[in-house]
Amino acid sequence: MLIETFPNPNPARAYTITHVNPEFTSMCPKTGLPDFGTITVEYLPDAVCLELKSLKYYYLEFRNKGIFYEAITNQILDDLVAACNPHWMKVTSEWTTRGGLHSIIEVEHTRS
Amino acid sequence: MLIETFPNPNPARAYTITHVNPEFTSMCPKTGLPDFGTITVEYLPDAVCLELKSLKYYYLEFRNKGIFYEAITNQILDDLVAACNPHWMKVTSEWTTRGGLHSIIEVEHTRS
Amino acid sequence: MLIETFPNPNPARAYTITHVNPEFTSMCPKTGLPDFGTITVEYLPDAVCLELKSLKYYYLEFRNKGIFYEAITNQILDDLVAACNPHWMKVTSEWTTRGGLHSIIEVEHTRS
Amino acid sequence: MLIETFPNPNPARAYTITHVNPEFTSMCPKTGLPDFGTITVEYLPDAVCLELKSLKYYYLEFRNKGIFYEAITNQILDDLVAACNPHWMKVTSEWTTRGGLHSIIEVEHTRS
Amino acid sequence: MLIETFPNPNPARAYTITHVNPEFTSMCPKTGLPDFGTITVEYLPDAVCLELKSLKYYYLEFRNKGIFYEAITNQILDDLVAACNPHWMKVTSEWTTRGGLHSIIEVEHTRS
Amino acid sequence: MLIETFPNPNPARAYTITHVNPEFTSMCPKTGLPDFGTITVEYLPDAVCLELKSLKYYYLEFRNKGIFYEAITNQILDDLVAACNPHWMKVTSEWTTRGGLHSIIEVEHTRS
Amino acid sequence: MLIETFPNPNPARAYTITHVNPEFTSMCPKTGLPDFGTITVEYLPDAVCLELKSLKYYYLEFRNKGIFYEAITNQILDDLVAACNPHWMKVTSEWTTRGGLHSIIEVEHTRS
Amino acid sequence: MLIETFPNPNPARAYTITHVNPEFTSMCPKTGLPDFGTITVEYLPDAVCLELKSLKYYYLEFRNKGIFYEAITNQILDDLVAACNPHWMKVTSEWTTRGGLHSIIEVEHTRS
Amino acid sequence: MLIETFPNPNPARAYTITHVNPEFTSMCPKTGLPDFGTITVEYLPDAVCLELKSLKYYYLEFRNKGIFYEAITNQILDDLVAACNPHWMKVTSEWTTRGGLHSIIEVEHTRS
Amino acid sequence: MLIETFPNPNPARAYTITHVNPEFTSMCPKTGLPDFGTITVEYLPDAVCLELKSLKYYYLEFRNKGIFYEAITNQILDDLVAACNPHWMKVTSEWTTRGGLHSIIEVEHTRS
Repeated sequence: MLIETFPNPNPARAYTITHVNPEFTSMCPKTGLPDFGTITVEYLPDAVCLELKSLKYYYLEFRNKGIFYEAITNQILDDLVAACNPHWMKVTSEWTTRGGLHSIIEVEHTRS
Repeated sequence: MLIETFPNPNPARAYTITHVNPEFTSMCPKTGLPDFGTITVEYLPDAVCLELKSLKYYYLEFRNKGIFYEAITNQILDDLVAACNPHWMKVTSEWTTRGGLHSIIEVEHTRS
Repeated sequence: MLIETFPNPNPARAYTITHVNPEFTSMCPKTGLPDFGTITVEYLPDAVCLELKSLKYYYLEFRNKGIFYEAITNQILDDLVAACNPHWMKVTSEWTTRGGLHSIIEVEHTRS
Repeated sequence: MLIETFPNPNPARAYTITHVNPEFTSMCPKTGLPDFGTITVEYLPDAVCLELKSLKYYYLEFRNKGIFYEAITNQILDDLVAACNPHWMKVTSEWTTRGGLHSIIEVEHTRS
Repeated sequence: MLIETFPNPNPARAYTITHVNPEFTSMCPKTGLPDFGTITVEYLPDAVCLELKSLKYYYLEFRNKGIFYEAITNQILDDLVAACNPHWMKVTSEWTTRGGLHSIIEVEHTRS
Repeated sequence: MLIETFPNPNPARAYTITHVNPEFTSMCPKTGLPDFGTITVEYLPDAVCLELKSLKYYYLEFRNKGIFYEAITNQILDDLVAACNPHWMKVTSEWTTRGGLHSIIEVEHTRS
Repeated sequence: MLIETFPNPNPARAYTITHVNPEFTSMCPKTGLPDFGTITVEYLPDAVCLELKSLKYYYLEFRNKGIFYEAITNQILDDLVAACNPHWMKVTSEWTTRGGLHSIIEVEHTRS
Repeated sequence: MLIETFPNPNPARAYTITHVNPEFTSMCPKTGLPDFGTITVEYLPDAVCLELKSLKYYYLEFRNKGIFYEAITNQILDDLVAACNPHWMKVTSEWTTRGGLHSIIEVEHTRS
Repeated sequence: MLIETFPNPNPARAYTITHVNPEFTSMCPKTGLPDFGTITVEYLPDAVCLELKSLKYYYLEFRNKGIFYEAITNQILDDLVAACNPHWMKVTSEWTTRGGLHSIIEVEHTRS
Repeated sequence: MLIETFPNPNPARAYTITHVNPEFTSMCPKTGLPDFGTITVEYLPDAVCLELKSLKYYYLEFRNKGIFYEAITNQILDDLVAACNPHWMKVTSEWTTRGGLHSIIEVEHTRS
């Protein structure tokens, strides 16, 4: 799946962009049951910005995929970093209760 | 469109001005559908201040314009900096949900 | 899909049961995009009660189905009434924002 | 503009549908300035239901139209009644502050 | 298990007693996993009142018992009615999320 | 202990008086451990009103007394009715958690 | 208009005084329409303190005056500094919505 | 009026004591009208502590006294410092609205 | 009264324990009237931990004792330090209103 | 009981994982009565992550075990550190009221 981007309207300026998705859903790889969570992406763009509609379609690809919380969060960070090569990016995933437990995963990338 | 200004009543004094517009609307450049958001401008004036009525009319020009969140936020900062040449200015835009996602953009300018 | 039931532990007594599912998801029949909502079922059982685990699996069948809000809400009422033949049942569906709009559907059944 | 409908999935059952639009905007006929409000539609469908996507596009037609609050609210009721001929419908519009005042209009239709 | 009672200090007076237990736990009869809920008992005493310490121990007997929500709620009502023969009693159970669903059961008894 | 009263300044008028005591404490008759609660008295006075300072000292007499919630609540109602013979009085006691349970008792008296 | 003062009861001690006026009103110099706001004054007094009644009358003088937010805020600071010559003073003005926008101005003075 | 003290039960230990009086009242020296406020005293005791009952009676002496907020706050600090000679003390007075304005005064003493 | 302890399950690890008692009561040494407060104990255990049931009984010994807030707070710290010899301990007492005043006392101990 | 793990999807990246269990229950070793609490685990994974389903079953093993709060909290930290050998882990337990007291225990581990 291609995550589209568009030229950063002001690449010379350091500024932050935040996209929050409270309607993320994927499948548990152990039980095949659905997981529900909120994915928050914060980043400092460089040459390009993430296009929202393709980001929405990117998230939809997880809908019927069996994958752990930790793997999802890392993969989203890897995919979005690959798509837009930002100066800095953070992805946070917060999950609804499963088996009485609820979880939060936080991952960060800084361009070296 | 001219953003009017008026003489800063006390240019010798460093002080901050904040204008919040919770009724901003523009169009998505991909779908042609309307976007709704809150624009917050904070600045340290130098010789002149932004006049509120012309600021309101300036915002109205985006009503039927197809433009990305990131471009709007940068353009507002550029236009307002050009209009009043402040010591410092920050523009924050917060957007209502589109495709299940909501976004926040923050840009800053410091006069060098 | 079979919705399982178990014998009402006290069919002689008139009492109410409420099951709330804040993690319901289906697909929009026009766009193919996912919808998210909360389904609330309230009923007065007669001979049998709805078994929760099979109710959860019943809801999962809508995950990749294209169907309108109104049709979902009516179908859930019809299916659950068929499964447990209650004295009375009400189904309420509340949906997250789509195109800036959010919706609520309320349907009721009383055994004649 | 055509407001699309789809067959009521259960015309024999009396039930209520509510659509809330917190992103409605039109123009003031006296000043040409934008108005912002929330439109709530509640109805008892008969043979057909309102289709949400065309309802969204219907609302967009008011974006650049100069029209009073009272006229908008009545026209929406008239147009939606004409589109779906419901047993009963109510339209409520709530408006943001203009000149220090904010307003609410409520109109109802019952099929005779 | 005996639920102890003590003489109603004023049987001639109609008055209500409410006991809330937010720390109830039992086991799911299908999965063997624990359920957690809040049990609320409201009643109009006749000759005797429920003694709190024995009520606490009575609730503890469900700790490792596999039993449905509906059966628990009805059994508590039956046992407490048998123990104190009140003019009227209502038992409400509210349960934490299981499989994304949460439930409420309400049962009532009026002495005929 | 004498609960003092003073003449109702307007016995011809029907009006309500409420006294709330969130610092009530007594002893459990089974364990000897302290109980803590809030006692609320509401009444329609007739010839006399309850004097507050003597009401405070009246409550203090329960401090080291072993007595059930139900008995306390009824006794307070009986004692205060005896002291001031009101048209109507209601006493509500709400208790802090004991053994994971918390309780509310409500008793009422109407002069026949 | 004279802003009265009275001798600081303890000029040797450094301490802070805050006066909040949530009922300030003036006129917009462009439209002649009223503006409403909250004015907060914080200061470290030296030889004299601001007298509250004359401060109230001082604020009343703006009622029918056409003046910009920025000018009001600076003028209040200048006038109050002139009246009581404090070690330090800060004036904050927060304004209700005008044309969909609301504003905050913050100015500070430190005696050199 | 004598503010009583009692020996600090642990003068060797540095610890803080806070007394809040939300029922303070005095008179405005200009209008003769009552003022209402909250007085907060925080201190590090040395040899003696302030006795609460005499502190209450001390506060009562201001009831019919015409005195400015600033003078009250400084006088309370002076009187309490004189009474108990603490290592450190802070007095804060917060006043209800007068003429649309409300005020806060903060004074501090550190033993040199 | 003996405050019981039990061996710290992990004396090699530095960690914190907090016990909050919102149901503390004692007597005022001047008036003989009851005081009500919340006692919070925080500590870093060394060889032993405070046993909760004996801590509850320890608190009960103050029920009918006439003692100042400051003395109670220091005595609890002294007694608990003597009982478990922790690396560090803090006791905070917060008291309900007496004579219109409410108070907070904070004391700390660090093992030298 | 084996706490399962799965390979960390990105061991080269430092990131945090949090699992919250508001449905923990164990038994008091002195009274045999149940305790209820919330267990929060935060950690920086190294080679492996904790698998949620086995974590849930691990917690269930405490259900009928008599053990002190302090021992539970330290044992959970020890067992989870042994299971996944993280760079850093913190376990916090917060307990509901027992005998009028409620408690919080916080323990931390950093790999040396």
